[in-house]
Parts: sequence; structure tokens; C-alpha cells
Amino acid sequence: MSATVATLAKEEENHGKLKAVEDQHGGIIVNMEEPMDSSLFASLLEASILQWREQGKKGLWIKLAREHSNLVDPAIKAGFKFHHAEPDYLMLVHWISNAPDTLPANASHRVAIGAFVMNANREILVVQESNGRFSGAGIWKLPTGAVDEGEDICTAAVREVKEETGIDTEFVEVLAFKERHKSFFRKSELFFVCMLRPHSFKIQRQVSEIEAAQWMAVEDYMAQPFVRENEVFNFVTKVGLSKIDGNYAGFSTILSTTSSRKKSYLYFNKDAARMLPSKL
Amino acid sequence: MSATVATLAKEEENHGKLKAVEDQHGGIIVNMEEPMDSSLFASLLEASILQWREQGKKGLWIKLAREHSNLVDPAIKAGFKFHHAEPDYLMLVHWISNAPDTLPANASHRVAIGAFVMNANREILVVQESNGRFSGAGIWKLPTGAVDEGEDICTAAVREVKEETGIDTEFVEVLAFKERHKSFFRKSELFFVCMLRPHSFKIQRQVSEIEAAQWMAVEDYMAQPFVRENEVFNFVTKVGLSKIDGNYAGFSTILSTTSSRKKSYLYFNKDAARMLPSKL
Repeated sequence: MSATVATLAKEEENHGKLKAVEDQHGGIIVNMEEPMDSSLFASLLEASILQWREQGKKGLWIKLAREHSNLVDPAIKAGFKFHHAEPDYLMLVHWISNAPDTLPANASHRVAIGAFVMNANREILVVQESNGRFSGAGIWKLPTGAVDEGEDICTAAVREVKEETGIDTEFVEVLAFKERHKSFFRKSELFFVCMLRPHSFKIQRQVSEIEAAQWMAVEDYMAQPFVRENEVFNFVTKVGLSKIDGNYAGFSTILSTTSSRKKSYLYFNKDAARMLPSKL
Repeated sequence: MSATVATLAKEEENHGKLKAVEDQHGGIIVNMEEPMDSSLFASLLEASILQWREQGKKGLWIKLAREHSNLVDPAIKAGFKFHHAEPDYLMLVHWISNAPDTLPANASHRVAIGAFVMNANREILVVQESNGRFSGAGIWKLPTGAVDEGEDICTAAVREVKEETGIDTEFVEVLAFKERHKSFFRKSELFFVCMLRPHSFKIQRQVSEIEAAQWMAVEDYMAQPFVRENEVFNFVTKVGLSKIDGNYAGFSTILSTTSSRKKSYLYFNKDAARMLPSKL
């Protein structure tokens, strides 16, 4: 290991600049995979920036794994700023062009779901949470949860309901969504209320997050002061009932192919779209 | 300035731990506002962690402004991980409890908008971009842009259209939205197609990002191979036309008050909601 490091450092010293790859936007990406002494890094970085500037490069990126945290300080002192971070790495960026900065913005939102699931007896699936602001208050609420990295909203809703209550469901549509700002630090949250159709009915709650789960008559759910006094919870329940009775259309999904051949979901009002002209 | 620093460092040394405030979840927040020597910081942090552990604290947060980048390395060596970063600061976190980690997730999505704006002659507002993958290709596309930090989707759509074309508009509704994963690094993107009603018609394009802007007959827009061959662009235009002709309902907004008395927008199908039961 240390032999590899020494070889790599030597090679880089020989070339007098850091190992880097070019990106598709006239930029440079340095991905530090091996340890390096911070003084050596500082001098290689300085020399590299001079060369990249001469080459007309614009955005310089440095990705530092957590174990290379000794290199954060020299990068900042060389003019880099933080771009984003995940638990295991930090991304730094330095725009060295005179042209206006076209760097991509950092992620700004967290995405969460709430699930409206009703059985044939007009009972809705509700839970009591072990943690958070509703714990211990005896409040029955809709199952909610955060969408995982890379997970689709429609998939997350089904997963959360399964994890919290053991109930198997199928995504029907997004009934409504809400945007909230500064929900944590400077970030925003998009909260999607999803209607799901239940395919099983026996409740098996997940012990760690959920105190209790049950099917509850919708009138009893709505009679809780917590629901009655919150205009959004109240409204969303009415929308859900309206949907059950065939009087509301939210956004359901179609799977589309993007220009880069990836699959992605498009959410829209399929009921209304039946009336779309087949040709202009 | 240096006197203040010295005083502060002395005070902290005297107390033997870092200045910190408690959060509402049994955690501790250290906001480093003054410079500190990295060795002093390392020893104060070690002593502080011992005390916080004894006090049963769970999540420890350290917010480091960019100018205190010398403290990143000692924090990581003390067991901290990156949580998130913005250009001017880095947030580090360390979960020291044996209970399951309930730390909030980092932001996972960027949010962007596309604007469908049509005048009374069935011409839609289109632009040619100076940068990006469509530049120089002579392609006319809908105005698009990223939602700023803390900005509402409906506000961002109106702002982007104004900036790119000079046209004043009013938000009508979200026609559809699309979710894309790994759109940049590991992050996802939510793209909202918004219908806006124009209130002015004279185009004044923004020079830096936009090469050209015009009102274009919708048939000509849709005849472009770029639109014809992209199922999403094609579909979205048909949805927009259907809406113009009164045959489609997307999600419009109402302003609701959250439990913390902040205002936030709820997006839902207002047309269908007219049929909502006023009482259960």
C-alpha cells in the first residue's frame, strides 16, 4: 500500500501536476483515491491550477474521500469552495474562468411521502410514531417517510407502508403535494400525498419507528383535534375520500424513456389525458 | 480581532470544552465563528465529546465556515462525518448514542421548471439557449430553469420566463412533473412543467443565457425533430394544448398555514376539488 502511494506521489511529482480527468463541460475532475501529504498536495495543486488556467479550463472539481480530510484545508487555501458533501466524501469546486459561472447547483430539496390507504370498509391505515413531534401523544396519522436516494416517489410510498405496517399496496396516484422551506438547515421539502390501493390487510408493524398501526374508521381519524385543526391534513383526507368516490383525479404515472435511454416516471392527470388529441 | 480570538480561546480552554448550544433533539451544535488553532481545537473537541457522551447527548453537529477549513481534519479524526456543504460552509456530524441514528438525511433533489406559455394566436413562447447541450443547434425549446434556494415552484416559473424572455406571466398550474435520477453526481431532479398565462407580449431576451426568444406557432414547434422524437416533450405539448382547450386539469395552488405558522403552497387538482364534500 505505502509502496503504491510512494510510486503515485513520485509519478505526480514528476509530471508536476495532479492526476485528473476532463469532464464534458471544459472542466477538470481530481478524484483523490490515495493518501497524500498536505504540503505536497498544496504545491502540486498550485502548479496544476496554473496549467489548467493556461489550457482555458473553467470548473475545477476535487473529490475528497473522508480519509483524505487533511487535503481540505490546502484546497480551500488554493481558492476552492465547498460544493456538496455526503457522509463519505466532500466535493470542492473552483471556477477559474472569466466567463459566467455555469456550475450545477447543489441539491435543494428533500422529498417525503404520505400514504392514503383505504380498505373496503372505509377504514384508513394509520400509525403512531415512536419518535418525532407526535410520539407519545396518542395521535393516529398517515404513514409518512423520506424518499431514499435514487428511489422513485411511487416506489417509496409502497415501501414505507410495507415497512411501517406490513401492508402490501399498489401505487394509484399523487393526490396533492406541498412545498415547505427551511425544513432543515437552509433546505426545502417536497411532500407528496399518495393514494395506494391495499392488497393485504393484516397489520404487522415495524417495531423501531412505529408504536402502533391500525385500520381506523375515517370519521374517527378526522375527529382527532390534530387532524381537525390542521387545514392540510383535513383537506388531504377530503381529497382522498373524493378520489375513493370517483370524484377526483390526481397525477398517476407513465414510464418514459429519456434522451440518455434511462427510464423515468412522468406524473400527470391520466383521466383528463384520455381526451388528448391523438394528432394535432 | 486577534485579542478577541485570544480571549475566546482562553475562555474555552478555561472551561475545557467548545462553545456549543443544545438542539431540540438531544443534540449539540458547535458553530465555529472565530478562528482557532487546529491542535487546540482537537484537544477541546476530545474533552467536549467525553462530557457530551456522559450527558447522554446523541447527535453532535459542527458547522465550519470556509475560512475555518483547518478544523475539518481534526473533526474527521475525532469521528465526525460530512453531513452537507454549501459554498460557504461545511456541516459535520457525529452520532455518539447507542440508539438508532435519527439524523436528518441530506437534500436529495434539485428542482427545475419548464414553462408552457401560449398567446391568443396559439403561439408558444420558446427560446434558444447559449449554453448546454442544445446550444448552437438551432433548437427552439420551452424556457426552463432551476428553482432557487427557498423559492416556490410557481414563483420560479414566473421568474425564469421573465428573465429569459421579458414576458410577464401568471402561474396557472403544474401540468405534469418528471423525476430523474443521477442527474448530477448521486442526486435526483424533479422537473415541473408549469402552464403560465401571459400578461405581456413584447420579447426582451436576457443576453447571457439565451441566444434568441420568440413566439412560435405550436405546429412549427412540434414539427422540430427534437420535439417529435422526444416522447416527453411531445406529450407535454399535447397536454398543454388540451389544457388550453379546457380538456385537462393539472395541479393549481392554495396557500396553507403550517403548524409552525409558516405559509406554504399546496398543489392539487382544483377542478376536481370543486366536487369535494363540504362536510363528511
